[in-house]
Amino acid sequence: MSLLIVGSIGIDDVKTPMESHKNLLGGSASYASMAASFFSPVRLVGVVGEDFPVKYRELFRARGIDLAGLKIIKKGKTFRWSGEYLWDMNQRKTLSIKLNVFERFKPALPREYKATPLVLLGNIAPALQSHVLSQLSQTRFVMADTMDLWIETARSELLGLLRKVDAVCMNDSEARELTKTTSLVKAGQKLLFYGPKFAIIKKGEHGCLLFAKNRFFTAPAYPLEDIHDPTGAGDVFAGSLMGYLASVGEISFEVLRKAVIYGSVMASFNVEAFSLNRLQTLRQPEIEERYNSFKVISHFDDIDF
Amino acid sequence: MSLLIVGSIGIDDVKTPMESHKNLLGGSASYASMAASFFSPVRLVGVVGEDFPVKYRELFRARGIDLAGLKIIKKGKTFRWSGEYLWDMNQRKTLSIKLNVFERFKPALPREYKATPLVLLGNIAPALQSHVLSQLSQTRFVMADTMDLWIETARSELLGLLRKVDAVCMNDSEARELTKTTSLVKAGQKLLFYGPKFAIIKKGEHGCLLFAKNRFFTAPAYPLEDIHDPTGAGDVFAGSLMGYLASVGEISFEVLRKAVIYGSVMASFNVEAFSLNRLQTLRQPEIEERYNSFKVISHFDDIDF
Repeated sequence: MSLLIVGSIGIDDVKTPMESHKNLLGGSASYASMAASFFSPVRLVGVVGEDFPVKYRELFRARGIDLAGLKIIKKGKTFRWSGEYLWDMNQRKTLSIKLNVFERFKPALPREYKATPLVLLGNIAPALQSHVLSQLSQTRFVMADTMDLWIETARSELLGLLRKVDAVCMNDSEARELTKTTSLVKAGQKLLFYGPKFAIIKKGEHGCLLFAKNRFFTAPAYPLEDIHDPTGAGDVFAGSLMGYLASVGEISFEVLRKAVIYGSVMASFNVEAFSLNRLQTLRQPEIEERYNSFKVISHFDDIDF
Repeated sequence: MSLLIVGSIGIDDVKTPMESHKNLLGGSASYASMAASFFSPVRLVGVVGEDFPVKYRELFRARGIDLAGLKIIKKGKTFRWSGEYLWDMNQRKTLSIKLNVFERFKPALPREYKATPLVLLGNIAPALQSHVLSQLSQTRFVMADTMDLWIETARSELLGLLRKVDAVCMNDSEARELTKTTSLVKAGQKLLFYGPKFAIIKKGEHGCLLFAKNRFFTAPAYPLEDIHDPTGAGDVFAGSLMGYLASVGEISFEVLRKAVIYGSVMASFNVEAFSLNRLQTLRQPEIEERYNSFKVISHFDDIDF
């Protein structure tokens, strides 16, 4: 099945304690789409300026991503972000942000996109996510990502959105902030109370948690020795998770467990190099191999349901 | 097989944002022994003053713990600790500490203890841990726990101890501090480099990591909604892990994986009530039931080694 992904597309400058790179392909929709394309057909919805490098558009094309929903604003400038990671790679600071064409982004879906069965509402303003949702028909499963900015500045719009989606995905600190509780177990349950049938809390180097009514799954993180660039890991996770669901075509807690692991597998690859460089060389057998590693590192006893 | 446990035995005053209790049974050896006793015969080595309540000695006896190694100092006062947990229960501050009889503790093992096959060197000064080690013969497996205090004040003694033990167990922050690295994967490997064949890094609410040469296992944490008192969770974890190993009588990476889960199971029970109250009512079938829950919450696919 097809997967529609909406979110930001940008040009990033990224600095880590070891390296610094400029004019990288970035943005939540870029990371999510490239990752999801390993699993299912992807339809990208986003906006860029005329300055958006042709080579980046070609990267999307090379992975078979449908760009009918990619709007190019004449004389416009592409969204730009610049950030720096501190020495432990768990914390980062935004050095500069220029919304540019993203400031007036109001996604209008191409007609052929409106019946896409699976939809990932990447991290953009909740009002825009709702706007996309309102254009859809026959959609079977929608997952929304979000960030602290919207929890702080658009809380009621975000809660309104959560009533309308099937799943929500956010970081541990964001889940705590939105639900106003310190226990992640309670936070997950409260997210379900807001509306979604599934809630996913990402814990970075500690893996992630999946919640459904009376169901719980805890996914480990892959033990990487070196992380080169954490940018986009959460978006790659969300994109791959949704891509896997689209490839299976059936939504259940059992399928979601595996989807969460595929999300973790892909995120673990993505942080091995800057921007989307690692995904450009990634081959299908490597994905299966690491998926099996996740089984090996977390298995301790035979299970008999 | 029998398990020898050495460590502190104390009287604690514990405060959380919700409750406050005084004169509780505490200390690393108390927690570890009570927990281990659910799996194997335990020999306790420690020191208390004449003020140590008879009811607490009875608690040990009720669980069949051998107290031949428990020294009672006439007119001495028992070690006392007082601490307070902050509202998120992940941080605590020590309000007061009185070493009392513990200040001159120099454990001398009863003759019949010297051939105990498994030994847990609970968190005391590395020099004392080495002193215990020097009295042992025919010991098959020794695990040492430690804490930030010794990393900061007795680093060379601690590194000397690590050359002589089979396994080491510490918190994530302590592992980072000792190995001077931020990556927990690198920290675990560096701990092995110091000497032990196995290294265990406890991550609190995020579970724990087990390292051996070219082997890795990641254990989840149990999703508790309410934590009443985190005191002693790490000691219960270590005691149960060693108790399980003693019950199996065979040391391998496969057995250690399960041991780590039993450690997590017992720690998850212990934090449900103050001091050792939960372990006093705990029944064997509850342990097996929660062990199975750990399988359910972390299983995502069949494994075929």
